Amino acid sequence: MFNLFPLKGGFDNVQGFFCDGVNVGMKKSATDGDVAFVRSDVACEVSAIFTKNRFAAAPIKHFLGYPKGFKTNFLLLNSKNANAMTGHEGVADIEKLFEKLHLRLANIQNPIMSSTGVIGYRLDCEKIATAFDKFDFNAKNSDATARAIMTTDRFKKEICFKVELEDGSFFHIAAICKGAGMINPQMATMLCFILSDAAIPKEDMDILLHQSVTKSFNTISVDGDTSTNDTVMLLSSKCSGVYDKEAFSEALDLICKHLSLEILKDGEGSNKVVAFEVKGCEDEKQAQKAAKALSNSLLVKTAIFGADPNWGRIASTIGACEITCNEESLVIHYDTVLVYSKEHPSLDAQTEQKAALVMQKDSFKITCDLGVGDASYTAYGCDLSYEYVKINADYRT
Amino acid sequence: MFNLFPLKGGFDNVQGFFCDGVNVGMKKSATDGDVAFVRSDVACEVSAIFTKNRFAAAPIKHFLGYPKGFKTNFLLLNSKNANAMTGHEGVADIEKLFEKLHLRLANIQNPIMSSTGVIGYRLDCEKIATAFDKFDFNAKNSDATARAIMTTDRFKKEICFKVELEDGSFFHIAAICKGAGMINPQMATMLCFILSDAAIPKEDMDILLHQSVTKSFNTISVDGDTSTNDTVMLLSSKCSGVYDKEAFSEALDLICKHLSLEILKDGEGSNKVVAFEVKGCEDEKQAQKAAKALSNSLLVKTAIFGADPNWGRIASTIGACEITCNEESLVIHYDTVLVYSKEHPSLDAQTEQKAALVMQKDSFKITCDLGVGDASYTAYGCDLSYEYVKINADYRT
Repeated sequence: MFNLFPLKGGFDNVQGFFCDGVNVGMKKSATDGDVAFVRSDVACEVSAIFTKNRFAAAPIKHFLGYPKGFKTNFLLLNSKNANAMTGHEGVADIEKLFEKLHLRLANIQNPIMSSTGVIGYRLDCEKIATAFDKFDFNAKNSDATARAIMTTDRFKKEICFKVELEDGSFFHIAAICKGAGMINPQMATMLCFILSDAAIPKEDMDILLHQSVTKSFNTISVDGDTSTNDTVMLLSSKCSGVYDKEAFSEALDLICKHLSLEILKDGEGSNKVVAFEVKGCEDEKQAQKAAKALSNSLLVKTAIFGADPNWGRIASTIGACEITCNEESLVIHYDTVLVYSKEHPSLDAQTEQKAALVMQKDSFKITCDLGVGDASYTAYGCDLSYEYVKINADYRT
Repeated sequence: MFNLFPLKGGFDNVQGFFCDGVNVGMKKSATDGDVAFVRSDVACEVSAIFTKNRFAAAPIKHFLGYPKGFKTNFLLLNSKNANAMTGHEGVADIEKLFEKLHLRLANIQNPIMSSTGVIGYRLDCEKIATAFDKFDFNAKNSDATARAIMTTDRFKKEICFKVELEDGSFFHIAAICKGAGMINPQMATMLCFILSDAAIPKEDMDILLHQSVTKSFNTISVDGDTSTNDTVMLLSSKCSGVYDKEAFSEALDLICKHLSLEILKDGEGSNKVVAFEVKGCEDEKQAQKAAKALSNSLLVKTAIFGADPNWGRIASTIGACEITCNEESLVIHYDTVLVYSKEHPSLDAQTEQKAALVMQKDSFKITCDLGVGDASYTAYGCDLSYEYVKINADYRT
């Protein structure tokens, strides 16, 4: 038995951590942070899941240069520049920054950097280093930290749970996250930093993080594009001295699920979050293939934007997946509205109106039962609007 | 030695064929045809390549019901309704229509139907059958025929070559085609009907059509969505008595290439045709995977729409393909403008301006040399504009 209590304040609740975000001039408005840090009193074990993109960004290469099982007490974060496709120099820039940081803070240990923004430009190290004089290294400023990693995000993504065990002891787990475009889930899909003060062993950190990410970030897609910088990272200060595996796992699952749906809600130009449940498949791989194809189909995404219950596009997308399926056993629902059942379209004027009403909601579910087996998978996607095109036609200006 | 002379008039040049298109009220304007036929004096051998979509439409199932090597002298074509996901009844509707047709034209043999339009609605057979009284069965009206199969197409797609051999003998090959959205090339990708009066053996028809389609329609993508109705069909009346394999093959290649690029040019909401050449790959499969990923990436397509030389999206897309590649050997050009070479971005202000100029053209090429092998593949795509979203958010009204 345990209880999860949501708390405001994100990282500020987690014992042993400090954080702050400042503007060094990369974002135009001086009130929008572009560089942030997270540090801890004690060195923390760290679990991380990175992008599967072959051109992983410099911060990821730098991280992977540390020996297995290393501990860290410092994260440096920036937006506006991904430090990706910058070669050896990109990694050297990070080392240069940490040398400068070391002059300000003597006790940093295995510092980690994480970056998001445009690909293909060297970091302006001089500019970023000015943050070291602006940071309050003893601040608990989760809000500024979460804001400093935002790019095209329309809102800040932050969450915290107090996890109380039966005996009244408790620990915290909190996360901040950014992501709105270049989101596709073979993996991490964005930046997400999760802090805890639970006394969790490293082995559990690795296993539970992997499980949670598989069930959350890896099921969402904004645009089918997999970034060079995707990172999900979990650190624990262990300061609470308290731990319960089941409770931690449930809180972590909730946090990852919540933040992944927040990313979709904030998907570039997106207005709706849609669950694509594909069931009755021969195996889970086929169900996943079909569910992800639906969440990435331009025709499905534009029909959702237009609230047009054009289920033929759903059927056509499934048919194009090269999986086992047939017209005779397929059944399609929009929420509870049946639109196609085993060779029989049910789309009379009344049904069509009902389905269109479902599609006008902020979120709904499209269920496809292939009727050829028992496996299922649910992928999450969003609509494709004029706004997405606008944002991405000239992202860099 | 042979010469290819382009001719106006499409199908009208090909000996032994007649065709016409009329309006039966499915398209709103009475001047826009929605039903057409193509017939021949003699029964023709036919080669066809159909969609790989598991939910192939009723006309495709009907075609596949004929014995191998069958001959036909009649094609019935319609737009506005795809007759897909209509089950056994969809096939029965086609048979019903051909029974009615038989009352008007006694000598039809193994008639074929081909449909395009919305998925999931039964054909209005009564309405379509009114075309049988409106058709001029002895017309040579390629223009009306090509127009009757248009859906969201902005322009008619029609081409004809007179193929003249060294001895002065000649034959014709002509095609009409439709396609603008739901275009993705695992296969045929749209409707295309190719007629010839060459004395081509059936074996050559099959081999040459397959070769041409692989090099043309299968390399293009408008939106990554594979339709239920894709069809490329080649019929020859053999009326000219003339044939030369090399000449026929070259003319067929030119026709398929031309029409596939016409489809891209007419891609829903598209303004630009872009060639994505991926070379220096370990094998052709990897090159194809990367080239197609580029042509389907929303971020790449929107950057092209905005004429933004954001080569980082090109690199990121390649990196996400799970193929052999590395930053150290990758080289990226926009036409002849070098933007990235082996860990070094070349995008200073001057280069960026040059690359932006390239992207403002109607058509250009993005070349990625992965530098790890000798294989290459070129895919063709288009930009993603507001217009695409508009067209597809409410296609059915």
